[in-house]
Parts: sequence; structure tokens; C-alpha cells
Amino acid sequence: MVPSASSLIFGPKSSSFRPVPVRSLNGQTNVTSSNSMAAPVTVAAPKWAQKTITLPPQRRGCHLITSKILKEIGQDLSEFKCGLAHLFLQHTSASLTINENYDADVQDDTETFLNRIVPEGSSAPWKHTLEGPDDMPAHIKSSMFGCALTIPITDGKLNMGTWQGVWLCEHRDYATARKVVVTLNGI
Amino acid sequence: MVPSASSLIFGPKSSSFRPVPVRSLNGQTNVTSSNSMAAPVTVAAPKWAQKTITLPPQRRGCHLITSKILKEIGQDLSEFKCGLAHLFLQHTSASLTINENYDADVQDDTETFLNRIVPEGSSAPWKHTLEGPDDMPAHIKSSMFGCALTIPITDGKLNMGTWQGVWLCEHRDYATARKVVVTLNGI
Amino acid sequence: MVPSASSLIFGPKSSSFRPVPVRSLNGQTNVTSSNSMAAPVTVAAPKWAQKTITLPPQRRGCHLITSKILKEIGQDLSEFKCGLAHLFLQHTSASLTINENYDADVQDDTETFLNRIVPEGSSAPWKHTLEGPDDMPAHIKSSMFGCALTIPITDGKLNMGTWQGVWLCEHRDYATARKVVVTLNGI
Repeated sequence: MVPSASSLIFGPKSSSFRPVPVRSLNGQTNVTSSNSMAAPVTVAAPKWAQKTITLPPQRRGCHLITSKILKEIGQDLSEFKCGLAHLFLQHTSASLTINENYDADVQDDTETFLNRIVPEGSSAPWKHTLEGPDDMPAHIKSSMFGCALTIPITDGKLNMGTWQGVWLCEHRDYATARKVVVTLNGI
Repeated sequence: MVPSASSLIFGPKSSSFRPVPVRSLNGQTNVTSSNSMAAPVTVAAPKWAQKTITLPPQRRGCHLITSKILKEIGQDLSEFKCGLAHLFLQHTSASLTINENYDADVQDDTETFLNRIVPEGSSAPWKHTLEGPDDMPAHIKSSMFGCALTIPITDGKLNMGTWQGVWLCEHRDYATARKVVVTLNGI
Repeated sequence: MVPSASSLIFGPKSSSFRPVPVRSLNGQTNVTSSNSMAAPVTVAAPKWAQKTITLPPQRRGCHLITSKILKEIGQDLSEFKCGLAHLFLQHTSASLTINENYDADVQDDTETFLNRIVPEGSSAPWKHTLEGPDDMPAHIKSSMFGCALTIPITDGKLNMGTWQGVWLCEHRDYATARKVVVTLNGI
């Protein structure tokens, strides 16, 4: 089989570095292939990294935290040619999502949507009210957006689109610090 | 480079075990680092495990299934110092989500929310009705919460927050058994 | 420890191939175990593959794209006995989800639901309107369904359920081509 610009399969030295040809679409090329071909085999050895990040309390609403995350993991990321970054929020009343990274109005409008769709206070039908009127809505919003993200790593960077960013959505009125377990895996 | 308490990159012996320093935030330390430093290299060899779990039929609603999952994968989990656990529900009318693990009212209120937000029966605009009035709403709820979870593994355990648990949300009135493909990857 | 039909842990040659017994439920067996036992150790060497797929513009709505994805990655998939496939949409006004793969009405009804739940036009409360009345609703829908999927790989194929398929949900009226970063990892 001959190498292809559109995809490569990397394996440790013991399996002999094996390029695998795949069909290319619209001349799209694998963003990692050019450098990966030149990468020494030691770079192709699988690596794992894991750390827990603590984010300071944020006001209720959606917050762009890409730079905060990169400040914590950027140096580790640079060790990976190809891999996956997993972000796991250890809470059930906030969420992580990927959305627009430019206009803060998008964050405000998303918070507006969440508050319109999940009833809160006297009009709400919730049984779980012991922790305050904003608690049960927070749990629902957390399952709507989810508490985890997996993002591709390419050439030492998070391979997100031009307009994508990582958001922390805080669903409680009086938030505490939030912990995110970051796990990096790749070569 | 000197070791750091806040993160480590693990690789197989062939790449030489390389600690990587990263900035620490709020004194947060990598929960795996202490043991991982002492881990024999054989433990740092990447491992994969995969099995299919069959969950018995559950009534319509949200169900905490953390213990059911751990009963199936706990022994495998204990083999991993650091990694990721992926749970994949092979169905389109139920969902997996992570939410509160203490008060069953949170599960009931979440079911109440799902039923309020997705119209069902004569008031619903659905074209897909052949499989019953609860089927199309079930498909929508499945995409809202999703059918898969990825959870970090740290020191042989699922590294969830204190109040987090795995939920199976059954969206059909007359449910069948549900299959979950569990894939573990790590060192 | 003795091998089990319900789960296996695979490692590279250096860690010696170690079957790990786990309890079986309802006679469920690990779909990979039979072949994996016979797999040569070279197959058990961890591999990574990554490529960017460009999907042509689609009309607003939900579209089944499983075959389009498999046409791009099927040959790479066949190299993996066990692993995970990660699909990452590099956009914030469309989404990826897994849902029913048979009746196109399910796709239409899901689009109907999204349009009912997220207000658009003069009745909408959005501040972010510069990019058109369909833009802010598109961002919200993108976070509701998400922009990424992780699917188990078993014996060279995506291990989805009988009725599951990969959907691209296009939330813009005038869509452009959409890029999906596909990352495969396994043995």
C-alpha cells in the first residue's frame, strides 16, 4: 500500500510505521499528515496526560473559557502530534459546550434560551426544590448541554473550527469553583 | 525537564518515561501523578477493553445505573491507572446522561421536563407515528441527551464528581432490554 | 487469571497479552473477544488515524450521513479490531447526532421540533441578529445536539445499533460545506 495525503495510521515502532491509503474528498488533506510523515517514531509512542483544573466561580450564564483551558494544558498539548483532548466537568448544575467564540451576545442569548425553556420558581413543577429554585433547572440544563467534551488534537493544538470555543455554562445563581478533569491521549 | 505534581505524560518504555512540567492552578494536583510515578512500566503500556452490557427493561423515566455499570466493568477498571471509559447505548429511543446521584426527585423532575418540552399524542405534529405516540418523542429526547458518555478513569475508578452518576433515560412506554457497548482505554 | 468471553484487555507485546476475566450478564459476550484472541500481536499495537472530511452543503434540516462517513473512513476502520471513532464538526451552526436510520420522517420531525423549541424571527428575543434570523437559533441548536460523536469500533466497523445512524443537522438556511475531523484510535 502507498502513502496518502488524506490519512495515515500511526503505530509504535514494534508495528512498523504503516501509512494507509484512503480516498480523498474535494482535495481535502489530513492536517497532520505533512508533519507526521517526518515525525520520529519515538513521537508515535502513545502518551497519556491527565490533570484536574479548578475554574474560579463564574456568574450564572455562558462563559468562553478556551484561553483559561489552554493556559493549563497548552504545554502538554504541544507534546501531541495527533490525539484527543477530553474535558470532564465534575458537576451536575453547570455544563460544557462548544459554541461561537467571537460575539458575547451569543453567550447571552443562549442563557436567555435556557431560562425560557426550563421553568424556574413558582411556575415550575419541580419536586426537587430544597437547594433553591435555580437548582433543579440547573440539573436539567446540565443534561441538555452535557458535562464533557472531546476535541481532536492536531500538531500540538486543539483542532477546533475558526469560530469555535469552549464554553462553561454556569446554571447556579451563586456558583462555586468548578473542577474539570482534562485527559489527553495521543502520539 | 523536571517532574511536576500537576500533570504527567505517560508513554511506553520505548519512548522513555517522560514527566512534563505544567503550570499548577490553585495548588490543584493531578490525582494520578503520585501513584503513576511509582507505577511499573508494564502498567504504562496502553490497554484496551471492550464489552457489551445488556441492561434489563426499565420503566419510562430516568434511572441511576452507576452501580449496574460498575458491577460489569469494575474489575476491568481496576487495571487502569489513567484512561477513558466510553459508554455507548445502541438505541435511538433512550439516552445516557450524567446527573445527580442522590435525590430520586431529580430523576422524576427531569422526566417531567422532557415530557413537557416534547409534545406527544394528539397535540403533536409528528409524521412518524407508526410505532406509537411515544416513539417520535423518544427519538427527539435521545438526541437531546445523547446516547454516549466518556468518563475519565483515574487510579482504577471512574473519576466523576461527588454528586455525579450515570443515568439511563428510557423514553419508551414499553421498553425492551438496552445494550451498552463499554470501551476502556488507558494505561 | 483465566480468559473470559465477556471482556479482554489488550496490550502491546511488551506488556504480555493479558486476558482479564469479568462477570458476564445475561450471557452477553464481548463481540470482539472471539477474533481478538486470535489477533496477531502486531494488530494489538495501538494505532491512530486522523483526517478531515468536507461534506458538501446540505439544505436546512437533519440528514443521514453514515454512508458518506464510511466512504471516507471505511478502509481505515478495517485496520482496527477494537477502538473508538471520534467525529468532530468544526462549526457552531450545525450539529452531529446519532438517531434513527430508516424512516426519513424522523429526520423531518426532529427538524420540526428544533424549529418549535427555538424561536426565530420577529418573535425571538435574540441580541445576536447580524448574521440573519436563522443564525442565533442555529447556535442554540448546535449546543443542544452537540458537534461531536464518539462511536465504538469493533472488528473493523462502527459498532452502532441496528437502527442507529449518524446525522448531520444543518441549522442554517443557506449552508456552506461543513468540515468533520475524524480521529480513529485503537488496536
